[in-house]
Parts: sequence; structure tokens; C-alpha cells
Amino acid sequence: MAKILCVLYPDPVTGYPPEYARDSIPLIEAYPGGQTIPSPADIDFTPGELLGCVSGELGLRKYLEAAGHELIVTSEKDGEEFERHLAEAEVVISQPFWPAYLSAERIAKAPNLKLALTAGIGSDHVDLDAAIKAGITVAEVTYSNSISVAEHAVMQILTLVRNFVPSYKWVVEGGWNIADCVERAYDLEGMDVGIIAAGRIGQAVMRRLAPFGVRLHYFDTRRLPLELEQELNLTYHDSVESLVRSVDVVDIHAPLHPKTYHMFDADLLATMRRGSYIVNTARAEIVVRDDVVAALESGRLAGYAGDVWFPQPPAVDHPWRTMPHHAMTPHVSGTTLSAQARYAAGTREILEDFFAGSPIRDEYLIVDGGALAGVGASSYTADGSASPGAQA
Amino acid sequence: MAKILCVLYPDPVTGYPPEYARDSIPLIEAYPGGQTIPSPADIDFTPGELLGCVSGELGLRKYLEAAGHELIVTSEKDGEEFERHLAEAEVVISQPFWPAYLSAERIAKAPNLKLALTAGIGSDHVDLDAAIKAGITVAEVTYSNSISVAEHAVMQILTLVRNFVPSYKWVVEGGWNIADCVERAYDLEGMDVGIIAAGRIGQAVMRRLAPFGVRLHYFDTRRLPLELEQELNLTYHDSVESLVRSVDVVDIHAPLHPKTYHMFDADLLATMRRGSYIVNTARAEIVVRDDVVAALESGRLAGYAGDVWFPQPPAVDHPWRTMPHHAMTPHVSGTTLSAQARYAAGTREILEDFFAGSPIRDEYLIVDGGALAGVGASSYTADGSASPGAQA
Repeated sequence: MAKILCVLYPDPVTGYPPEYARDSIPLIEAYPGGQTIPSPADIDFTPGELLGCVSGELGLRKYLEAAGHELIVTSEKDGEEFERHLAEAEVVISQPFWPAYLSAERIAKAPNLKLALTAGIGSDHVDLDAAIKAGITVAEVTYSNSISVAEHAVMQILTLVRNFVPSYKWVVEGGWNIADCVERAYDLEGMDVGIIAAGRIGQAVMRRLAPFGVRLHYFDTRRLPLELEQELNLTYHDSVESLVRSVDVVDIHAPLHPKTYHMFDADLLATMRRGSYIVNTARAEIVVRDDVVAALESGRLAGYAGDVWFPQPPAVDHPWRTMPHHAMTPHVSGTTLSAQARYAAGTREILEDFFAGSPIRDEYLIVDGGALAGVGASSYTADGSASPGAQA
Repeated sequence: MAKILCVLYPDPVTGYPPEYARDSIPLIEAYPGGQTIPSPADIDFTPGELLGCVSGELGLRKYLEAAGHELIVTSEKDGEEFERHLAEAEVVISQPFWPAYLSAERIAKAPNLKLALTAGIGSDHVDLDAAIKAGITVAEVTYSNSISVAEHAVMQILTLVRNFVPSYKWVVEGGWNIADCVERAYDLEGMDVGIIAAGRIGQAVMRRLAPFGVRLHYFDTRRLPLELEQELNLTYHDSVESLVRSVDVVDIHAPLHPKTYHMFDADLLATMRRGSYIVNTARAEIVVRDDVVAALESGRLAGYAGDVWFPQPPAVDHPWRTMPHHAMTPHVSGTTLSAQARYAAGTREILEDFFAGSPIRDEYLIVDGGALAGVGASSYTADGSASPGAQA
């Protein structure tokens, strides 16, 4: 019998379950490139339900309790109760939207911990070096919400360029101020759009933007196949510096590691075209918080959007809540009801394999057997170092 | 010497000119399909400027006054001053975002009127039957803002499906209520999306949505070429009724005429899938105002967005300003700064031809020589009747 500590975001303020807007979600049969969707032996939830909050329990309780395990589900990701459960847990599950930070200090206090499981994608809340040393497996549900995030990024690019939020506000405030709405509104058509990191999400964004009549640029440490560059008419840049001075819109999909930490500082922002836009659905610490605010105030940036913050949750007075020309959301792009169905199923699949002693799918593994693991971990190794330093 | 009455929307509340967010707009060289962009002999504005408001004057004053004409620019589209100028005007220019309604009664009081010019697209604010009888030419700047509107529609589809507005609100209100943001948030991927009217805008929307992994449906009175259906994997419906019961998202791009007037009433809405979304950037009177509100309140519709209202401007207490689950903007999709540069140039081109006695480009003509004219008018003839009844 194992103890599983599952840290999820709180229930809706209106209670659980919510009144669902729709009766079902579309069935996705495979991911682009052919990776199969999660394949647990069974699931105990209906796709389309709210699974990522405390009462949703990722749909895991029936399965885990039937197998004799103890499931603790809480939204307390700090404090005494968390520390007490952590000291006994064999598995810790959390989501990037409400991350239970597993620092080296905390890992040292978790002698039973064998599996740190991200229900979603992005394990930078786990100190990977410490996990390697402690022999902990780190796994995430690769691809489960990549398309969700790509859609969110395209939406926010359009939202910024077309000045949606101020226009919406004129509606609800009773006005019809067309000139005020459009004095900062542009078409995306014809603009240069630069993607930083052309992995699953970045490629999905580029595919979606290609028919918009934009010129697509990208930077990545590894160049894409020539046929893909030709198909999407991509311009490759071998440095971020080259990319950002060549585009009107920057869309960030890089993982957080020492080389991307605070990459967008005042110096880099100063090299961008006046009136550029940044959308960042990757990790907040890739940009310098207050330098972004200053660039919006000076007009160097015409807009900033995305859904990643540091820390999460951000303080009530976090300056991004009130900075000009933003179209931010909380960290929700990867936790639509559609995404939840996939990552809840993937979490179940990983747990089934873990408890059966079967190998976890290679594409889900970040750390395994005391080392960075196969496909999944490649995002974390751009700098040659294992860990981005959780809770940095 | 002619008198030109130009009715434009009011200046920004912060004054004119605004502080522009960007230094330029991208140069578009041709429209999809090969139609050339407007080709006036000259322009007296810088593309990217705010031209559609009173002080912007569509960049026409220098040119018209040098040619000895009198230009009246006003935002008064009703009342004594408007009527007085109308009685003398040879040309009336207005935009769909701030339409000067030219009803049969008004046309009867405009003995000198020879040209009703829409700076933009959509001449349903002009009573076309009355224009035909009076020998007035009706022209618009075909294609000038079609892509602008298509981008807006794609943005609003994503905005509704992904529940953007409530999520943004949690940011500015200081919260981090992930569950509240996402309990109505879905991915667009896998959904059925239906386009009503597959003209320039509808086709542009379908091209942009094709890579989103959706199933595309469309209704039009004329079927598209088979090769285009195959390229975009389109499912054709021979009735709106068939379309709406087969899709999750309806996106309306039909012109307003008697057959589309109040097409979306309670009966049709009741046949849609529970939790459907409607985006309407075409004309407000294609839907029944209060039936949309009721469908949002009952949950039949999960969201409604778009940018067209009736009348324009709508009253401060128009129910669409406060109905649940909307993401409306004022009528701005076709008047981005990018669009303004094109339709201001097209307006100039049409005036140059008109005053030179040269033929106006066939694709710009709606009514000419006492009859509905060529290419441009085809949108207005679906019912076999010339006029939608301006000011209905």
C-alpha cells in the first residue's frame, strides 16, 4: 500500500461539480506525428468533466483505493499538512497550474518518494538534480496539452494585435468608441512572427499561423528538417538576438533552464522593433518581470500576453495584473476540460505501469533510474545541466 | 465643384492624432485570388494612421480641395445638419462601423446625389432599390477589409471556446481561480465548425481554421469548387438547418437580405447542439437579438461573439452588452489601422475615377446605371430582390 499525495487547484467558487457548458468533448485519436493518446486500462471519469481541481481528484480515487492505496488530495502545496504528507508519500502528483514545488530541501524530507508525476507538461517545479540523486522517477504526460497551449498562444497573438480587450471593455462599459478601439488595432496579416523553440507546441503554432499570411521565423537550438522549413516557409535564426530584431510578434515556447532564465531583459527588449508583441505561455522566468512592465510603459512593447507567472499563484499586487496593454490569463492554457481528460488518463496510465512494475512509456519520462531519461527530458538539457533549479 | 458629405466615426476621447503603437503597417501586395489592392493615382496619408474618424478625414481633404470640391466631414449621421448637407451632396461617404443610413426617404431628399460610397464593405445601410430608381451609383471597397474580418472571427471563435474573457477578468481582479476559468474552457481541436456563406471572408476563415484539427462545414447558395472542398476537407450543407445541427461552432459571414434577416431565431437555435457557439461578424439582424440572449441564458448557446449590432451605435442598455458568456466588440473588425489604409486608398481611387468620368472598377460596384452591378452586387441578390430595406 502506497500513499499518493495529489496537489490540485481549489474547486470553483461556485462549487463542484460545475454546470458544464457542453455535453461532451471531441475524441482525439492521436497526436500529430503519431504518438498515441494515453492508454490506461480503464478510466473512472467522463471526459469533459473538471478533473484538475480538488474534488475532481483527476478521477483517480476509485482506482487507487480499489488497489489498496491511500490517496490524499489537497490544494495545500505549502505548510505543515503538505510537509507531513510529503514525508510519507511514495508518489507526488501536481500540475504546472498549481505546482507543488519539490525543491532539494523538500526531496530530502521525502524518504519514501519514488515518483514525481506532473499531470500535464513541464516538470521545472521539481529539482531534477535532487531527483536524480535521490533515485526518484520524474514523469509527465507528454503531448497531453501541447495543442491546448498552441491554441492559447494563437488566440493571444490575435488578441494583442487586434486590441481585443480594450474593444470588449467599451462594449460592457456602454460605449461605441470605434476610434478608441482601433487606434491600436492592426491586422496580423503581413507581420513577421518569431517562435522561440520549435518543439511540439512551437510547431503547432507555426502550422496554425501559416495561413494567416505572416512571415514565420523561428529559433531553436536544433534546426528543423528542411522539408518542414520549406512547407511552412520558415526563416531560421541561429540566435534569439537575431530573431527578435526581425519580427513584430515573439511567441515563446522554450523550457525554463539557466540559458533561458531571464533571457528577455531590458537589453534584449531594447533591440526589438518598437511596438512589438510578446506572447509567453512557456515559463514566466524566461522574461524579467519588471523589464516587461517598463517596455510596455515606454512603448517598446505594444502588448504582452501569456499565462505563466512567477510564483504561481502570483500576489494580488503582481504588476502584470495592472500593466498596460496586457491580455494575460491565469495559467490555464494547458488545463482546458479537453486537456484534463487527456492528462488525467495519462496520469492513470503512468500510475498503472508504476504500480505494476511495468516500464513507463519512454516519452513520459524526464528522470528515471538516476539519470535524465530519453525523449521527454530533451527539453531540459539545452544547457547541458540537469536542473533549472526548482523554486529559483 | 461637387459637395462631398463624409460621415465618419468620432475622434478618440484622448484626442487626435493618437500615439501610435507601431511605426508602420505591413505592405500587402495583392488580395487572395489576385485582385489588386487599391490603386489611386496618389494618397495624402501615411498607412497606419487613424483615417476613419472625423479628424482622419480618410486622408481626402487635400486631394478634394485641390480639385475644387467641398468636403464636409462630420460624425453627425442624423439630425438637421446631416439633412442640410445631404440635400446638396453629390457624394455621400460612410463606413459600416458608423453608417449614415440612406433610406428611400432620405434619397428622395438628395436630388444631387450621384454616388453613395462605402469606405469598407457592406452597403446594406443604403436602400438599393431607391438608389437604382434614383440613378445613384453605389460602390464599396471590395476586399479591403475581408481578411481583417476573417482574423477577427477566428480570434473570437478561440476566445469563446477557450473562455478567454472570464480568465482575463480573474487576472485583473486579483484572483488565481484556475477551476473557475476552465470549467467552461475547451480546446477547439476536434470540433465541428460551420461557416455560413463561403465568400471572401468565409473562405479566409476556413483556410485559417484548417490546421486547427477541426472538421469544417459550410453552407452557401453556391457550392465551392470541388478541389477547394477537397483541399480544406469541407463538408457542404445545402441548408442552414442541416449545418447548424451538425456543428459546435457557427460562424456567420452572410450578407443581410430578406432571406437572412432574423434567420437565427428561437426555432433554429433550438435545433443546435447544446453548448454551441455563434460568432457573427456579418450583420446583427441575421439573428434575433432577444432569442440569442435567451439561448445564452438557457445554455443552448455556450457563447456568442462578433462585432455587429443593430442599430449602430447600440443603446447603452442594449442587452448584448450584459448578456452572459459573450465576447463582443464594437463594430471594429473591418477598421483596423491596416484595413483603413486600404479602404481609404480605395475610396480615393473610386473618387478619382468618378470625377474623371472614368469607369469605376467593376469589383467595387454594387449599383450602377440604374441596375445592380456586376461582381460586387452578387451578395445582395440571393433573394432575387435588390434591397434589404435600409434602416429596417
